[in-house]
Amino acid sequence: MAPVTSRADADTKGFSTVTKTADLWSRLAASPSQTLAQLFAADAGRVESLSGRIDLGDAADGGGILFDWSKTHLDSGLLETFSQLAEAMDFAAMRASLFAGEVVNITEGRAADHATLRGVGDAAKVEEAAALIDRMGMLVEAIHQGALGEVNHLIHIGIGGSALGPALGVDALSREFKYCDVHVVSNIDGVALEAAFDKCDPATTLIAVASKTFTTIETMTNAASALKWLADSGVDDPSGRVIALTAAPDKAVEWGVDETRVLPFPESVGGRYSIWSSIGFPIAMATGMEDFRAFLAGAKAVDEHFRDSDMADNLVLRAAFADLYYARVRGCQTRAVFAYDERLGLFPDYLQQLEMESNGKRVTTAGEEVDAPTAPITWGGVGTDAQHAVFQLLHQGTHLIPVDFIASIAPGDMLDPAHHRILLTNCFAQGAALMAGGQMGSGNDPARSFPGDRPSAAILCDDIDPATLGALIAFHEHRTFASAVLMGINPFDQFGVELGKEMANKIEKGGQSFDASTEALLDAAGLS
Amino acid sequence: MAPVTSRADADTKGFSTVTKTADLWSRLAASPSQTLAQLFAADAGRVESLSGRIDLGDAADGGGILFDWSKTHLDSGLLETFSQLAEAMDFAAMRASLFAGEVVNITEGRAADHATLRGVGDAAKVEEAAALIDRMGMLVEAIHQGALGEVNHLIHIGIGGSALGPALGVDALSREFKYCDVHVVSNIDGVALEAAFDKCDPATTLIAVASKTFTTIETMTNAASALKWLADSGVDDPSGRVIALTAAPDKAVEWGVDETRVLPFPESVGGRYSIWSSIGFPIAMATGMEDFRAFLAGAKAVDEHFRDSDMADNLVLRAAFADLYYARVRGCQTRAVFAYDERLGLFPDYLQQLEMESNGKRVTTAGEEVDAPTAPITWGGVGTDAQHAVFQLLHQGTHLIPVDFIASIAPGDMLDPAHHRILLTNCFAQGAALMAGGQMGSGNDPARSFPGDRPSAAILCDDIDPATLGALIAFHEHRTFASAVLMGINPFDQFGVELGKEMANKIEKGGQSFDASTEALLDAAGLS
Repeated sequence: MAPVTSRADADTKGFSTVTKTADLWSRLAASPSQTLAQLFAADAGRVESLSGRIDLGDAADGGGILFDWSKTHLDSGLLETFSQLAEAMDFAAMRASLFAGEVVNITEGRAADHATLRGVGDAAKVEEAAALIDRMGMLVEAIHQGALGEVNHLIHIGIGGSALGPALGVDALSREFKYCDVHVVSNIDGVALEAAFDKCDPATTLIAVASKTFTTIETMTNAASALKWLADSGVDDPSGRVIALTAAPDKAVEWGVDETRVLPFPESVGGRYSIWSSIGFPIAMATGMEDFRAFLAGAKAVDEHFRDSDMADNLVLRAAFADLYYARVRGCQTRAVFAYDERLGLFPDYLQQLEMESNGKRVTTAGEEVDAPTAPITWGGVGTDAQHAVFQLLHQGTHLIPVDFIASIAPGDMLDPAHHRILLTNCFAQGAALMAGGQMGSGNDPARSFPGDRPSAAILCDDIDPATLGALIAFHEHRTFASAVLMGINPFDQFGVELGKEMANKIEKGGQSFDASTEALLDAAGLS
Repeated sequence: MAPVTSRADADTKGFSTVTKTADLWSRLAASPSQTLAQLFAADAGRVESLSGRIDLGDAADGGGILFDWSKTHLDSGLLETFSQLAEAMDFAAMRASLFAGEVVNITEGRAADHATLRGVGDAAKVEEAAALIDRMGMLVEAIHQGALGEVNHLIHIGIGGSALGPALGVDALSREFKYCDVHVVSNIDGVALEAAFDKCDPATTLIAVASKTFTTIETMTNAASALKWLADSGVDDPSGRVIALTAAPDKAVEWGVDETRVLPFPESVGGRYSIWSSIGFPIAMATGMEDFRAFLAGAKAVDEHFRDSDMADNLVLRAAFADLYYARVRGCQTRAVFAYDERLGLFPDYLQQLEMESNGKRVTTAGEEVDAPTAPITWGGVGTDAQHAVFQLLHQGTHLIPVDFIASIAPGDMLDPAHHRILLTNCFAQGAALMAGGQMGSGNDPARSFPGDRPSAAILCDDIDPATLGALIAFHEHRTFASAVLMGINPFDQFGVELGKEMANKIEKGGQSFDASTEALLDAAGLS
């Protein structure tokens, strides 16, 4: 079958697919619910068959990532049925469409070309993407070599997809060495921008303004205030200190940025998939272009794994199967991610946007209301911190929560090796304890009893380096895409953010009435 | 009826209470499910009857907080039934026990005396608490006056309840002015401690070591490494730079802290309720004792409201009713909190621990397995950032998520007033949009359609100052307690964290075997 690339297509082929997938979902719902202990007891080869490794090649000095899904409830029967579901949903064809640069974002009539920035996909698009990255690289290297004078600080202004990636990349990759201090400012609350001002010397500060459309109200308001700060601080030609990162270069030029400092990215790269494009400029400014290219190469290794692996061996698809099993068969409204690594402290936030904005949808590509849950709420935190805050509920609460643990074999610190050993020990111990359950203390106090059989997956990296971070993000991009395909939804639009924006504009304009509560709040705040 | 203060009590009175509450829960489940629009249409006085204000008095310069629960599905019928449930569960007596310093933490045989630190409760305990706070105040003021030489930095080491409160308090309250830089380090990952070292001059740095038991492995490992850093940096007498915050002062002295720098707090104050005690030392170090006392006074105003208000007017109890309605009647596995204020960026994390560690339980105070969900997963973030990351799912996802919006009428910044106006406008617009729903664009594209009827509550503060922060936290402490009482669970223990700890100790000791997946991970990491 041809892939669904328009709503008309989706309608035409709808009926037989719907019937078939409904049967498969019924079969999944009726699948025997074995405990993890039973699954391990029944299959001595379980760990081997449900673990796999992606090697990242030279970009990671030969390192890679181990994905262990054996402590989830997946078994051969579920894998087989999910594989049939993937076939029924035209997974292979949709994946081919994605990488071919075809229109997969059907509501907006666009391709989703983020992989081309990693060098994977349609040759012409890959070439265009490479030219844009080279252009960014030249500017980054020129700045590092002093073309804009002494630069010690970069205030990066952007929000959502224009902020979460830069913040994660800079935090994860520039702790040991950095070319310049980067401060990411996103919130319209002026307190955020003032905090960045406090840490920067205006004389040696550049401002990056990141907005796909170059009209985002938060970003443009913050950018204007940043220019005012430069001017008030006596900086000549504040506009000359601005670098624009955008898919609307004309708008940036119109706003006053010289064309030589406008770094465009393709319209067909979505905001939450744009870290690979010029939106990654602050990462390259902090770590250098060599690291940024390694970051892209790590993602490319995952692209190739996802594109080329058969269903049975496709680690990305397997993760999506488990996600769908918990969300749709076991009724889990959330999925938790705990990074046992301080450098990945922002990774759960990054995934939250990627997954929830992509798959938090209520209609299928055919425009029908979905008849089952879509994206769960992604939440999480950093281990070991989270053990002392929320693990009580993971172990003894009433909600089943599938958990991913992420860790690195190599330490990120140079302190006593006890730090990293205890960190890893705790990470593995939590997965073991969630599954095993048991009884603490001498008696059989129910308050000290743990039911166990709680699932987790382990993502064990050889190290946290640029290639590994790129691979981790790409893995989750494709995992999100695979889930969307299997649910029959479009992961690439985000109309859900529009209504609130429209409502805010109406309030700002004035002269309209709202519900009684909103009116009362506006009154109380002196805004009516 | 007397309150349940032991498991024997709980057993004895069990049967009739269980029958009665089961009936009430059935009635709640069967209550007519009206839409928010219907509820507003039916009652012109809805906003007034479901909103209320807590004034914080002098500590907040006459300011206060408005709580608007009108955009939730509560109505007079639900409120009446929940009030009956509160009666059936002996709510008033349990509340009296809490404030009387009786044993409410029955599994650990302890009182929960955090309110005494605010000056509310049993007179003898209040006096003891005040003496401990005075002791802390004297040390803080002595340090500010130079008793320990020049002090520009404080590295506060603690985890969970010993870290989340200090981090929140310092971040929220010391942006405009601070006596010294505070860095909170919690993770065992040495990367966290190294990041603090990078920002501090060892010659002018103090180390606070915060651990209720003074045995927490993360904290003691980090403390040892911090002392080594001071010593390696040529600081004389590193132990002389340590302040210990603990309920086990003897252990701190044994570890090497001079008694004059040990700040104790009572054993009957739980970790996640300890921000009011000497665990708040870093907040006082940053903001000064006057602000810290205003913080306590703000909490006291909420204590008094919660203790003295009748059911119908008790804003804390009303919030708990809504929480239970969504968790148990509408099947919501999560609850979201969005602070539209950069200074409250850590507040959702703080609540996550408070609520999930307190009420993420599976057995009742009588030791029976609960027959309904307990605490939902608390998650959230900062507005407007979150609008660009997760609000897609709030508006168009398939999960119903009750949302709290928190904002401040007074701005925290001194930039163009547009920043704060847009911030508030967006906050109110989101609540309005979630409730109203609607259709975007010209046609009736289902991908651009919003079902609406999604609930939210608004917590509108006059300002974010120490008293307001204290009030916000105390409100949520009591909200959590009220929910626990109505569910019949103990919010004050946390045995759920023990099994993972035990498992980690077993791995650390070696010589034992684990499940095949854990063994394989230990092998891969070179830890077996």
